[in-house]
Amino acid sequence: MTGEPVSSQAQARPITISVDAMGGDAGPAVVVAGLAKSAKKNPNIRFILHGSEELLTPLVAKRRNLQNRVQIRDARNVVTMEDKPSQVMRNGKGTSMWSTLDAVKKGQADGAVSCGNTGALMALSMLRLRKMPGVNRPAIAIFWPSLNPQGFNVMLDVGADVKADAEDLLQFALMGVSYARNSMDLAQPRVGLLNVGTEEHKGRAELKEAHGLISKEAETSNFDFVGFVEGSDIPGDVADVIVTDGFTGNVAIKTGEGTASLIRSSLKEAFQYSLLSRIAAVLALTSLKRLSKRIDPRRVNGGVFLGLNGTVVKSHGGADATGVSAAIKLAFRLAEQGFSEKLAARVASAKEPPQDEQTSAHSEAS
Amino acid sequence: MTGEPVSSQAQARPITISVDAMGGDAGPAVVVAGLAKSAKKNPNIRFILHGSEELLTPLVAKRRNLQNRVQIRDARNVVTMEDKPSQVMRNGKGTSMWSTLDAVKKGQADGAVSCGNTGALMALSMLRLRKMPGVNRPAIAIFWPSLNPQGFNVMLDVGADVKADAEDLLQFALMGVSYARNSMDLAQPRVGLLNVGTEEHKGRAELKEAHGLISKEAETSNFDFVGFVEGSDIPGDVADVIVTDGFTGNVAIKTGEGTASLIRSSLKEAFQYSLLSRIAAVLALTSLKRLSKRIDPRRVNGGVFLGLNGTVVKSHGGADATGVSAAIKLAFRLAEQGFSEKLAARVASAKEPPQDEQTSAHSEAS
Repeated sequence: MTGEPVSSQAQARPITISVDAMGGDAGPAVVVAGLAKSAKKNPNIRFILHGSEELLTPLVAKRRNLQNRVQIRDARNVVTMEDKPSQVMRNGKGTSMWSTLDAVKKGQADGAVSCGNTGALMALSMLRLRKMPGVNRPAIAIFWPSLNPQGFNVMLDVGADVKADAEDLLQFALMGVSYARNSMDLAQPRVGLLNVGTEEHKGRAELKEAHGLISKEAETSNFDFVGFVEGSDIPGDVADVIVTDGFTGNVAIKTGEGTASLIRSSLKEAFQYSLLSRIAAVLALTSLKRLSKRIDPRRVNGGVFLGLNGTVVKSHGGADATGVSAAIKLAFRLAEQGFSEKLAARVASAKEPPQDEQTSAHSEAS
Repeated sequence: MTGEPVSSQAQARPITISVDAMGGDAGPAVVVAGLAKSAKKNPNIRFILHGSEELLTPLVAKRRNLQNRVQIRDARNVVTMEDKPSQVMRNGKGTSMWSTLDAVKKGQADGAVSCGNTGALMALSMLRLRKMPGVNRPAIAIFWPSLNPQGFNVMLDVGADVKADAEDLLQFALMGVSYARNSMDLAQPRVGLLNVGTEEHKGRAELKEAHGLISKEAETSNFDFVGFVEGSDIPGDVADVIVTDGFTGNVAIKTGEGTASLIRSSLKEAFQYSLLSRIAAVLALTSLKRLSKRIDPRRVNGGVFLGLNGTVVKSHGGADATGVSAAIKLAFRLAEQGFSEKLAARVASAKEPPQDEQTSAHSEAS
């Protein structure tokens, strides 16, 4: 199901990413700069760019490596960070966000990227692209810096919905496995279910139920289930995929981000304390930059919406050109691998009775 | 209700802390070293120490400043980290943990400290000390390093229970306010309710209800309600007290701890990369130590159980002597301030109809 050789012809086909130029904190110039960064590195990429044509045409014209590779689609309205998802679902038509998703819906683009309002983007994505057959609750998955050999874990859901029942958590596990396999080249990802302790009797009822469901599924699908994991394992090395509901996941990643930023500012303060510490800081600059690169959120910018008919990548609202380019790269890579189709196949196969998938000769007891 | 002048006589009265010598990862020698540290700094402190008399007598005898200040109570059984709370509730009698709480129950000690199993300690505390009148769900509160002037926020619940309804969250807010006032000398603490966004329409139903309840209470009690806060605000400066359920709170603090430890190890790696970076590290040592001290979890070691008839401080299982001493200091300070009585008064006053508490001349509308 996974790991089929991709023919060289398929690899050579240009891939088109539909990009929302509006709605980010830094404005369309930064988005266009991100496009230019990606275009420079990747000859195989094309763009459909959505927003005010008047604004975008001169921005694109200035970038030589975007010539003949960007189609601009005029969209006059913008979804702001303050707009409620329910409002956007009623009045979203005509916004750059809608137009961005529409190009994926119509098969004109292979994936979408937006820096806009997460709630609105999820609501419009569900409306326009619809949920994948067999998926009850889509999820947002992110990469999180970790002690794993690959340097990152996949975590989901980090905020598509505030709740998830046991069945949803099983689907998150399956989607997370597929995402980890396709984005990080892991043949046998390890899945952990987030809880307040690792003992099986701990936590909420739906978690105990999900423990059973995921454990059973691991026997027939190609992943390892490491059982319950704790918050400290999110940046740890016991699992590659961390499964949780969108409320807990959202609080966890924001706590992690807040903690990292507290340490960053304390580190800065510590180095500005005295003349000697300033000298040390200059000497330590390379080391600090190395650290900074390792935990730079821009390098892993992009939450992926899983469980929809099409790939949507949510870039951080405050992303700079490097961040936008990283989100585009992620959308490109997933499109190149036919990730959306692979994911649909995996979700569908889990719905079939296990005996249809594989007839196991050995006992399944215990 | 708060801030009454404490008479000098009351201040001079020796305060006795009941300490569980067993159950920590590092064993009783470290606990006794923690006692010695506290005794050295604080002439007003006395101890009742619980555990194997055979083990403890020589450990205490070696410390000169513990002479005549420690009463050892022989308790042969130990609650281990693996014991389930339900088992401990049935068979806990005779353990050092039980004996530690018993001294508080009987009024022989002014507060209890244990490095043992959190779930078991909470279960035994509820059994022995009972819930405070008017409290439905006790909570565990901790200090969390933050950008606030006082350097820390209070966060609760971080794991007493996996759930909390709107009424529980209101009680957590009141208990957190009282704790922040007594432990950090804040006259008017700012309370934030943890959610996935700051807009009032966001989040789970019980959070919206709690928002209304806490908001109303803030009008008559001496605290500010800043509304919903996000994970990034836990180490931030918008609130002094972060209120959440025990599941979310537990995941959040462990994620924060994990992130800090990932950065610590990456920082170490970055500085060991080359000869130059090693030289820089030597020069930067003072700055790094300053940072390390600022975010040192040992300095704020101690989760406090709120909502029980008596003060119980849970020290980190892996605490060293400095950590144990910090937990003892916290228990001492709370006892000295009569915190448990103040907290009971606050919870009780919130139960009364507001007009009994204060007749407000101005309109309460909006």
